[in-house]
Amino acid sequence: MRIVIYPGTFDPIHSGHIDIAERASRLFDKLIFAVAVNSYKKPLFSAQERIDMILESMKHINNIEAFSTEGLVADFAREYKAVAIIRGLRHVSDFEFEFQMATMNHHLNSSVSTLLMVTSEKYIHLNSSVVKDVARLKGDISNFVTPVVMENLKAKFGLT
Amino acid sequence: MRIVIYPGTFDPIHSGHIDIAERASRLFDKLIFAVAVNSYKKPLFSAQERIDMILESMKHINNIEAFSTEGLVADFAREYKAVAIIRGLRHVSDFEFEFQMATMNHHLNSSVSTLLMVTSEKYIHLNSSVVKDVARLKGDISNFVTPVVMENLKAKFGLT
Amino acid sequence: MRIVIYPGTFDPIHSGHIDIAERASRLFDKLIFAVAVNSYKKPLFSAQERIDMILESMKHINNIEAFSTEGLVADFAREYKAVAIIRGLRHVSDFEFEFQMATMNHHLNSSVSTLLMVTSEKYIHLNSSVVKDVARLKGDISNFVTPVVMENLKAKFGLT
Amino acid sequence: MRIVIYPGTFDPIHSGHIDIAERASRLFDKLIFAVAVNSYKKPLFSAQERIDMILESMKHINNIEAFSTEGLVADFAREYKAVAIIRGLRHVSDFEFEFQMATMNHHLNSSVSTLLMVTSEKYIHLNSSVVKDVARLKGDISNFVTPVVMENLKAKFGLT
Amino acid sequence: MRIVIYPGTFDPIHSGHIDIAERASRLFDKLIFAVAVNSYKKPLFSAQERIDMILESMKHINNIEAFSTEGLVADFAREYKAVAIIRGLRHVSDFEFEFQMATMNHHLNSSVSTLLMVTSEKYIHLNSSVVKDVARLKGDISNFVTPVVMENLKAKFGLT
Amino acid sequence: MRIVIYPGTFDPIHSGHIDIAERASRLFDKLIFAVAVNSYKKPLFSAQERIDMILESMKHINNIEAFSTEGLVADFAREYKAVAIIRGLRHVSDFEFEFQMATMNHHLNSSVSTLLMVTSEKYIHLNSSVVKDVARLKGDISNFVTPVVMENLKAKFGLT
Repeated sequence: MRIVIYPGTFDPIHSGHIDIAERASRLFDKLIFAVAVNSYKKPLFSAQERIDMILESMKHINNIEAFSTEGLVADFAREYKAVAIIRGLRHVSDFEFEFQMATMNHHLNSSVSTLLMVTSEKYIHLNSSVVKDVARLKGDISNFVTPVVMENLKAKFGLT
Repeated sequence: MRIVIYPGTFDPIHSGHIDIAERASRLFDKLIFAVAVNSYKKPLFSAQERIDMILESMKHINNIEAFSTEGLVADFAREYKAVAIIRGLRHVSDFEFEFQMATMNHHLNSSVSTLLMVTSEKYIHLNSSVVKDVARLKGDISNFVTPVVMENLKAKFGLT
Repeated sequence: MRIVIYPGTFDPIHSGHIDIAERASRLFDKLIFAVAVNSYKKPLFSAQERIDMILESMKHINNIEAFSTEGLVADFAREYKAVAIIRGLRHVSDFEFEFQMATMNHHLNSSVSTLLMVTSEKYIHLNSSVVKDVARLKGDISNFVTPVVMENLKAKFGLT
Repeated sequence: MRIVIYPGTFDPIHSGHIDIAERASRLFDKLIFAVAVNSYKKPLFSAQERIDMILESMKHINNIEAFSTEGLVADFAREYKAVAIIRGLRHVSDFEFEFQMATMNHHLNSSVSTLLMVTSEKYIHLNSSVVKDVARLKGDISNFVTPVVMENLKAKFGLT
Repeated sequence: MRIVIYPGTFDPIHSGHIDIAERASRLFDKLIFAVAVNSYKKPLFSAQERIDMILESMKHINNIEAFSTEGLVADFAREYKAVAIIRGLRHVSDFEFEFQMATMNHHLNSSVSTLLMVTSEKYIHLNSSVVKDVARLKGDISNFVTPVVMENLKAKFGLT
Repeated sequence: MRIVIYPGTFDPIHSGHIDIAERASRLFDKLIFAVAVNSYKKPLFSAQERIDMILESMKHINNIEAFSTEGLVADFAREYKAVAIIRGLRHVSDFEFEFQMATMNHHLNSSVSTLLMVTSEKYIHLNSSVVKDVARLKGDISNFVTPVVMENLKAKFGLT
């Protein structure tokens, strides 16, 4: 069984993430979201809230799991016996960051490769920060997140 | 059985290509090199010579095949029932070209995704043109190509 | 009356060009396509064929004209009393080329500014070379060009 | 009457901004600075101080106005009946951010286009952060800001 | 005597820095590390700790010195009679930042040029933040820093 | 004596090259232009014409020499006992090419480092192709080349 992991902050999951996860899950036997708990960043949602939104947003796909991690992605991959790390690529600045991460992860765990997937062009300008900014300012984000995420964002910003 | 294709000109195959193919071949059941026959570009080696160098350079890997194609990569992928297209990424300029190709191939064959793999840092500055330039000017390329490719390059440039 | 020019090779015009021209034509009183006749490049279509395809593809817009030029864009802008040059932007590599052109044109004709318009994300991976390559290899380009351009491409490649 | 808006933080306005605003104001009937009030960022100057510096620095141009906004740029554009959003471009990293903003604004208000103007090469390395850093460390910024801004910076840093 | 300075935060010095400093020190008569004391950034190590780690890590090279500075790099260069500023380049995003700094420093001190040196490919993905992140999460950083730096990182993170 | 080489095609030398050479020549004891004779590219000027224009354009600097080479830059550096290779940097696309060259040259001759110098912002958009294009179309290039180069360009294009 070939397992891959999809690490990220997912604060919250949006349509770009869902598109990557759907396509990657068809290429391997299982895809596991690795939700980063980073004490330095201050996410809007707790790790558990982020996992719940992922599982709800991806419930149409069978071979998906999601766990949080405080450690290195390379160690998470080893623990879950993953053969590869999946990441989405939108921009040149993504590219450099992903390059650095891919090389460091390969150094720390040489049995795992990083596979970068091109984000669908209709989500190429999307990221979690923009989603949160637009939601906070009451713009329409219904094309960019699932209903559960939209509800959670409204609740966080006191817009319900 | 999950098959992936690795399209390119491979004029000639070098250590960066070999690194990508080795790692990708472990993630899927078969990897097929799709050697582009492009009437506009004038490669140094014929398609058959390029295929022969690929097969010789990759003979330590079992699940590798190589065929030439004059058509679209998307059609080649369909013909060989591939689930994904593998490509190596070194640079920002690679990135934009790969993005464009990935999107067009997805448009032409939506059942196939493109997976970009980060080139190992020791081959990050390597490409077939540099290999040919250095070989032609009698520089040392033994770290960058297999013996069979080195012999073929010397023969082409009359350096044997 | 504020006139802008839209310079390019347009070999042939595609949906990305049409999107830029439609949006720019609403911001100014007239938009003039400046079709480059460059003796160094070898376009697939003659300047007259390219102008004819532009005018046919843009016939739903009133304030559009198209002329060919063998000279500098800065001189064309001066001749047609243009206040600005319009260009579409898709990629980082576009960006650097456009920057260079914008600065040189400003040097040669300081009364004209360059306005770069962001290509709609659904055409972000589109360019005339890809359109021609896919058409030549019998791929489907109906989403990317108007019927008149599709007919002309088929005729050029002997596919009718 | 064709109105455009020029959104930004302008903390404070510098010569690069002035160059863009001068050139854009000649292409349209009115240019309105939209000064972002962002509760997350902590600007050095208050919104009113930033507006006052803009109006003083641009007083040689007639068709300029400046207002602050706490909302979305797309909503500001709608409120002021703007046909386009003007932004300056200096760098590749600018480019990606502007691309994302342009696409999101087009999604939120499809009647408004974004026009990117190439910053004059003599201001290509200039931004408000560098201006503040150099001023704070007592470097010479007289080529980069107007006298009113220089006075305000000195006052803020207790250098008068 | 031709003196060059090598400015940075060096929080802490890593193998990429050492590689640049070794090569640059051979091209000039003296190389002085200029360790930035920036009240806005919060470095992990104090300026004195960073200087001590630099001097210990570079003790195999004779013509090296290290001092801290709270002021402009251009002023530091003037004070130490430097003819050039040395900086390492790894990535495109480095490139833009270095470009901006080089131009501003040239403006502030026209007698000093900036020389950018290409980081060795084996350190191309390395920076101080990644070193600190991996050390904090107990990953292996022995290839990336000298023993003194490894000890200091362990002590800071309570891992000894 | 520390010697550096400045390799390039210099077809023809322009103000950006002159700026780099002036600044680099002050940092070392001798600067040698290495004029590439490349049988694949078709330069407008012969190697001897290019050397003559370099020497005439740089005659205000004492420690400059210029020679042509058909071989590898790394071998030229070894032959002339150079400690470093100087190159100018303008753009991101420059950057990637220079990176690749720097790494390959370091592989072929580890005793030589590459020093990249930031082009002055007023020449950031300048290259030899643009100079030739504008000259051929009778645009004004007097700010970009020395009189001897302007005369030679006019003669080549039959504009005298």
